[in-house]
Amino acid sequence: MTIMLYDLAGADGRRFSSNCWRIQFALAHKGLPYETVPTRFTDIASIGDGSHKTIPVIEDKGQHICDSWIISNYLEDTYPNTPSLFGAGGAQGPGRSYSQFLQRWGMRAISFPLLNVIIKDIYDRLDPADQPYFRESREARFGETLEQMVGDREKKVEGFRAGLSPLHTCLDDQPFLSGAAPLYPDYVVAAALLWPRTMTRLKLLGGDDPLSAWLGRMLSLFDCLAGKQPKEWDGV
Amino acid sequence: MTIMLYDLAGADGRRFSSNCWRIQFALAHKGLPYETVPTRFTDIASIGDGSHKTIPVIEDKGQHICDSWIISNYLEDTYPNTPSLFGAGGAQGPGRSYSQFLQRWGMRAISFPLLNVIIKDIYDRLDPADQPYFRESREARFGETLEQMVGDREKKVEGFRAGLSPLHTCLDDQPFLSGAAPLYPDYVVAAALLWPRTMTRLKLLGGDDPLSAWLGRMLSLFDCLAGKQPKEWDGV
Repeated sequence: MTIMLYDLAGADGRRFSSNCWRIQFALAHKGLPYETVPTRFTDIASIGDGSHKTIPVIEDKGQHICDSWIISNYLEDTYPNTPSLFGAGGAQGPGRSYSQFLQRWGMRAISFPLLNVIIKDIYDRLDPADQPYFRESREARFGETLEQMVGDREKKVEGFRAGLSPLHTCLDDQPFLSGAAPLYPDYVVAAALLWPRTMTRLKLLGGDDPLSAWLGRMLSLFDCLAGKQPKEWDGV
Repeated sequence: MTIMLYDLAGADGRRFSSNCWRIQFALAHKGLPYETVPTRFTDIASIGDGSHKTIPVIEDKGQHICDSWIISNYLEDTYPNTPSLFGAGGAQGPGRSYSQFLQRWGMRAISFPLLNVIIKDIYDRLDPADQPYFRESREARFGETLEQMVGDREKKVEGFRAGLSPLHTCLDDQPFLSGAAPLYPDYVVAAALLWPRTMTRLKLLGGDDPLSAWLGRMLSLFDCLAGKQPKEWDGV
């Protein structure tokens, strides 16, 4: 049966949510048939019984499941005969912990710093129906205008780049962050970088950054699943 | 044949080096017979052919091997019939990458910040023969006296504690950072914390920090290998 993924969509339908990208990669990795439902922020309340506040949400076997980490673990447990997201050892192996660690680390090292760099670009690339909600909710949450939040952004990009070095270490002698083949840890980081790639022209990875070549490999996976998407960066 | 581990030793022979502790844990995990040779900073030049600048160094099968990451991989490759340090999948699985990531991350989040908190305490607990070398080399390297380096240390401890949160995530639903059982990722972080535990009375983990209970579990492994060592902290 086809799994439905409610997937955050911006202007021209572009998919930019890191949380949702993790699940697209997970579904593709497991080879599960799925379809995405392009969903705006202001559409989320109409999913299922209306109780959901965030996406991704998947619909599978008649139930709605929310939260990317819960969904990933659900897929891993529910479809044990598909390739494991966490590698050898599955949910009992170190790949699951590595994924968890990278997800929390990535929030601090990638997503939070970049929000203060690209939030205005995100706004500009949302569907017009979402823009008033987005500006109002974010300006209330952060106590600044979107324009104020992105001040001095070149300096923030420098700090962001310096913080990536633990990832570089993992690519010293192997093609993927998980080893010889991509696993959920790779999807966590790729999803975090697809977000700026889709929403800002500001190129955040230098061409000589080992993550650029790695991201190229990630974009080509699953018949160019991510590589085919609309994007703002030149090159990768 | 017994493997020899040249192991950094301070006053009263206490073993405080994170780099060396990773290898003690690795040898114990693999159940390989080994002995440690307590080694002061000023003894390192007398190991083997005199070419080594840092420890750990192990002596195995007539050769000397230096650098904890190289040693760990050597042990993994050379003794394939012992328990893997990296879990299911061994050197090809995600546990090796997770270890690499944590080692680099731990340098930035644990070791570098703490050096500016405990370097004077380390000095105080070195063998007297090492103290002049340590003060002179570190003050030249950092351009400050040891006493200047540890200024304002309470504030630095706060920042250090806040930075540990990605580790907490991994302990939300499992006893070890690697999952149900300890693997090299656990040894990397435990080794980083044995360093302050051995060398400073400043208690860096709150009793309610989930890492405290985890560290207790790490101390009890392998017949209390680490738990039996001299230490400065109350409780764990």
